[in-house]
Amino acid sequence: MIAIGVDIGGTSIKGAFINERGEILSRFSMKVDKEKTPEEEIGKLCDIINASIKEGNYEGKVAGIGIGSPGTLDMDKGIIIYSPNLAKWAGFNIKKFMSARTGLPVELNNDANVAALGEAKFGSGAKYKSAIMLTLGTGVGGGIIIDGKIYDGNKHQGAELGHMSIRMGGRPCGCGRKGCLEAYASATALIKDTREMMEKHPESALTEIEKELGGVDARNAFIADQRGDKYGRKLVRDYVKFLSEGLLNYCNIFRPEVIILSGGVANEGENLLKRIRRYLKKNTYGMRGSEKVAVVTSQLGYDSGKIGAACLILFK
Amino acid sequence: MIAIGVDIGGTSIKGAFINERGEILSRFSMKVDKEKTPEEEIGKLCDIINASIKEGNYEGKVAGIGIGSPGTLDMDKGIIIYSPNLAKWAGFNIKKFMSARTGLPVELNNDANVAALGEAKFGSGAKYKSAIMLTLGTGVGGGIIIDGKIYDGNKHQGAELGHMSIRMGGRPCGCGRKGCLEAYASATALIKDTREMMEKHPESALTEIEKELGGVDARNAFIADQRGDKYGRKLVRDYVKFLSEGLLNYCNIFRPEVIILSGGVANEGENLLKRIRRYLKKNTYGMRGSEKVAVVTSQLGYDSGKIGAACLILFK
Repeated sequence: MIAIGVDIGGTSIKGAFINERGEILSRFSMKVDKEKTPEEEIGKLCDIINASIKEGNYEGKVAGIGIGSPGTLDMDKGIIIYSPNLAKWAGFNIKKFMSARTGLPVELNNDANVAALGEAKFGSGAKYKSAIMLTLGTGVGGGIIIDGKIYDGNKHQGAELGHMSIRMGGRPCGCGRKGCLEAYASATALIKDTREMMEKHPESALTEIEKELGGVDARNAFIADQRGDKYGRKLVRDYVKFLSEGLLNYCNIFRPEVIILSGGVANEGENLLKRIRRYLKKNTYGMRGSEKVAVVTSQLGYDSGKIGAACLILFK
Repeated sequence: MIAIGVDIGGTSIKGAFINERGEILSRFSMKVDKEKTPEEEIGKLCDIINASIKEGNYEGKVAGIGIGSPGTLDMDKGIIIYSPNLAKWAGFNIKKFMSARTGLPVELNNDANVAALGEAKFGSGAKYKSAIMLTLGTGVGGGIIIDGKIYDGNKHQGAELGHMSIRMGGRPCGCGRKGCLEAYASATALIKDTREMMEKHPESALTEIEKELGGVDARNAFIADQRGDKYGRKLVRDYVKFLSEGLLNYCNIFRPEVIILSGGVANEGENLLKRIRRYLKKNTYGMRGSEKVAVVTSQLGYDSGKIGAACLILFK
């Protein structure tokens, strides 16, 4: 069986033909013109898909198309209700449209859920049945996979994993609440903390690292820490503490077999993971006798969205 | 169809014959002698059940026995691994034993899950498909019902709803972490806060209320608040704030249709609910456009455990 996985982004759409083992057979992509109608843009996407099927001799072998999309969705009906970066697409039934144009079954799901599904099935979660993936980027997104299936709460409205308050009355979050995990554990939050630390302590190694890197991103604090800079160390220690507290909560609520971290901060790899594991070990998983949870980084990188979207069809 | 629901407690076992509409047809109960073996005690329970079946002319009409038990369980195998109040029962396969003695299918689940299931099916959650129940008693227990089924995470090890930290580094919790919801929102926590407030401010109305009630329990603060006492008001306001923050987190993670509160503090009824609803409304449910969650108190009271246990069979 072959499935098509489509990953919709704000500026481009990327897709791939994927087999049952999660291997990418061929890829396609297109730029998205935000000013055009969804019918024009998705019409173009369908033309590309239909041509790719002929080109690859996939006729009769493709089981369907899975789509991962940002924004607010009606997953059951297949409608993009609202996506901030694709405002003209509001209310567009992408499932119905693509199904009519390609003659294939179409499944729609949230981009974060889909990426988690891809990692859980064919990435660093492949040997586990249940996984939680947290993406530490501009915000903190996430996906929950239990017994190999996406779990997103009632009417797909849950799983807002970045918006659990871990510090009541704490930092304001974009969602309107205070103290959300996102306000402490996103790359954005770490960058903000780094800048504040540099202003207060210009003598810190953070200043020279900014020059070396040509700016401030999630790496600066980790590099400073490795150079023995005490301000870098404090930034990393605090970051790990907040993130780990959130992870501990998710362990107690879901007890997944594995937590997968992705996004900018996860690029720190073992350097980040060993600190988190140490914190989790020291601070207990909440209840005595509860099972240990593995903590790893994502394996599929940017392909997790495409592969996960294909999984909507492969594991339907 | 009739099912038997059994609610195991530390000092007694209570049970009932329950029909498909969740109505109790007849009841039975027995004291538990902790010093005796589980074979003796559960043997006695089976005798009572077998006799009750004959007495009620239920032969051939009973579909099975559902059991709600405290402690650590292997639900799939039907084993009580460890229950602090029934230490001699450790490792006892209650499912196998009762099934052999009664000739009926037996299902075992956690008491908190089972109570939530009962409320969700036949209590104050009956008109909703998904519910979270929080029991505000000695600790904060809970159960999650999604699409009419118990949801308790990977290998039934999740759903430890009282052990989500809402205040990093906050109050120590019995589980070993700090800042858990249980450390702020249990009746135990409210009583502790009330006592501390009374020590600091003996002039508070709390002092006279203690005399009237003959002690301090979860009611004192609410009564003082109603009498216009500023210390009572502060206790109630803080309590509601902590509890509501936890509820907001669960809204963002699960987005249930309804939250059901039970246990000592829930006896405050509308007096508590109206404050929580106000807090939730004011502090937003996290994400724009997300659905409103109803907040109610439990309807079945002490019967929720028995009725929920029967639901393990009725909705198998």
